[in-house]
Amino acid sequence: MTDTRSAPISPVDPVDLTARLIRCPSVTPEEGGALQLLADLLGEAGFDCVRVDRNGTPNLFARWGRKGANRTFGFNGHTDVVPVGDRAAWTRDPFGGEISEGFLWGRGATDMKSGVAAFVAAAVDFVCGTPPDGALILTITGDEEGPSKDGTVALLDWMKSRGEAMSVCLVGEPTCPDRMGEMMKIGRRGSMTVTFTAQGVQGHSAYPHRAKNPLHALVRLFDRLASAPLDEGTEHFDASTLAITTIDTGNTASNVIPARTVGRVNIRFNDAHSSRSLMDRLRAEADRVTADTGVTFAMEVDVSGESFLTPPGEFVRLVAGAVKAKTGGEPVLSTSGGTSDARFVKDHCPVVEFGLVGRTMHAVDERVPVEDIRQLKAIYSRILHDYFA
Amino acid sequence: MTDTRSAPISPVDPVDLTARLIRCPSVTPEEGGALQLLADLLGEAGFDCVRVDRNGTPNLFARWGRKGANRTFGFNGHTDVVPVGDRAAWTRDPFGGEISEGFLWGRGATDMKSGVAAFVAAAVDFVCGTPPDGALILTITGDEEGPSKDGTVALLDWMKSRGEAMSVCLVGEPTCPDRMGEMMKIGRRGSMTVTFTAQGVQGHSAYPHRAKNPLHALVRLFDRLASAPLDEGTEHFDASTLAITTIDTGNTASNVIPARTVGRVNIRFNDAHSSRSLMDRLRAEADRVTADTGVTFAMEVDVSGESFLTPPGEFVRLVAGAVKAKTGGEPVLSTSGGTSDARFVKDHCPVVEFGLVGRTMHAVDERVPVEDIRQLKAIYSRILHDYFA
Ligand SMILES: [Zn+2]
Ligand SMILES: [Zn+2]
Repeated sequence: MTDTRSAPISPVDPVDLTARLIRCPSVTPEEGGALQLLADLLGEAGFDCVRVDRNGTPNLFARWGRKGANRTFGFNGHTDVVPVGDRAAWTRDPFGGEISEGFLWGRGATDMKSGVAAFVAAAVDFVCGTPPDGALILTITGDEEGPSKDGTVALLDWMKSRGEAMSVCLVGEPTCPDRMGEMMKIGRRGSMTVTFTAQGVQGHSAYPHRAKNPLHALVRLFDRLASAPLDEGTEHFDASTLAITTIDTGNTASNVIPARTVGRVNIRFNDAHSSRSLMDRLRAEADRVTADTGVTFAMEVDVSGESFLTPPGEFVRLVAGAVKAKTGGEPVLSTSGGTSDARFVKDHCPVVEFGLVGRTMHAVDERVPVEDIRQLKAIYSRILHDYFA
Repeated sequence: MTDTRSAPISPVDPVDLTARLIRCPSVTPEEGGALQLLADLLGEAGFDCVRVDRNGTPNLFARWGRKGANRTFGFNGHTDVVPVGDRAAWTRDPFGGEISEGFLWGRGATDMKSGVAAFVAAAVDFVCGTPPDGALILTITGDEEGPSKDGTVALLDWMKSRGEAMSVCLVGEPTCPDRMGEMMKIGRRGSMTVTFTAQGVQGHSAYPHRAKNPLHALVRLFDRLASAPLDEGTEHFDASTLAITTIDTGNTASNVIPARTVGRVNIRFNDAHSSRSLMDRLRAEADRVTADTGVTFAMEVDVSGESFLTPPGEFVRLVAGAVKAKTGGEPVLSTSGGTSDARFVKDHCPVVEFGLVGRTMHAVDERVPVEDIRQLKAIYSRILHDYFA
């Protein structure tokens, strides 16, 4: 990309930008004007912007600087938001972007229009001030809250096919439980859902020895799975967890032993496991129960993401240092919580996550202290400064 | 009752009567003309007949001899039948009452229009021959295969209110697994269904420690219930059994731990238990799981019948002796199988069950060897003879 700027660029106010983004009703899968707003703004600031939509999912790629630059800093985020929920319970317009009592109110205020606004503002500021010896890449998707099949993944696929690469990436999701700056994420547990179909032999409740009761086998298997810890945690991770989420038989006749039943477990796993190693483990447990009962298990797996860790090193220290410089506190290096698009980025380059306090995310009256947005922008600016220093 | 017979009574052919009953399409709850046919026939033979219908369920009471007689022999049976099922799979008209290849074919051929016809024929024969020093009572319901709430129970309630009583009662259900005369029933296991509603605390699958997973509690409880034998059997009974018949949660979100789930067990229990003692046992097990998990269990019980036993004694010996006299073999004194209306009669007087081979009951091409019906009638006649001897 060549420098095509002809007019001076005005700095972006991250609070104002967050408010404008909140006014875009971008409930997944609606684009709502949010990515267009960012594309216009980044384009004006000299970023090369491309909409990388896939199967109707809107995505925005923006680069400042040379493709293939030795040092390329990435930001990742999303503009889509979860539904409003109980509209009547809101005390402000969820799409009003109203500022009052020191807060900016609205759906997406913390998750994560503020995060996107803060890194966009920091990026624009930075390239207008001391243009880096390297490049900035912003990947912003319109589907992180939905199926996420054509969101950040599509952006990364597209980048790979074009030879676009990030050296490191920061995801701007909210990461702090209570206090600004107290936590960053250097990895995430993996998540997988396994559906078991237990197949036995139907029979009459009065003659259970003539049947093979799939429920007896399933409760035994599930009790074993729920009772045996998967691990005790690892250096950077809490213990893995397994939750039974549903069992469904649908047999209304109490004198009938059904032929089959279905049950499902969700596993959040740390770096001691992979989805494959866990499937082997589940299969072995299921086979043991089959040997005892004659009931067989079909297993179907849906892997939302493998676990990953960006080991504490130069990049992690740089982000943590910037947080400390601006907030005064050392952020905890955490791997807790659900999944985020970092699970996709991690296949591309080292990735960490740092953002706001997420307490009101997905809730009624979602809101963010105005000062937190400014502080987040300052932290992101400091990270860029230190990275390219 | 006074003897009002004015004309000689002709004997009843039990095979012909079974065929005529089969032609009455008395699928529960339809009367189908079956009870009317019997009432007419018994009335002609001098029986005092009363229709004791309750809530639309048809029932027939018939007595020969004096109300309150010292020795009153009872027969109990039902004329209703289960549905035809796969009509196309039948090789004969299920309501045709056709005789061929030595069999009488049709729905109800074994369960239990033949049994009713045999005891009606035996009763008519007996009172026309050597009228007993006592009375005969026949209770025949049109709802044994259905809910059974207004069938034999209604007859017994009505009898109680009228001072009608049986000294002993024989239920004519099929009792022989393979060979005529090989088994009679001197009791039945009880049957109860218990529905557990496990109430926990909803949560996110990523943070199971913040939730109380009702499924983890339920699979633990149910695995314990299914694994621990209720008993080893008693002198006259097989071991009690417990079958989990359904678990239903209906949670489609794999990232959500549900707040509640429902599960159901059916228990067939012998004379070591009562429904009450079993509920105490289940409650104690449930409370243990609650203590471990914080998940509470609501329990709802539906008792189909308590277990009962008519201990081998004079009446049992009399019936067994008649069977042996006519078939040459000593019948096994069994308490196996599902429930029958004997579970109601047992609160009224000593009750046993003896009838045909039940192999084709409830099946396609239900049929009975013609000779078996005649032999059954001969056994019933012998029982009446010996009882009043
Ligand atoms: Zn988010
Ligand atoms: Zn029956």
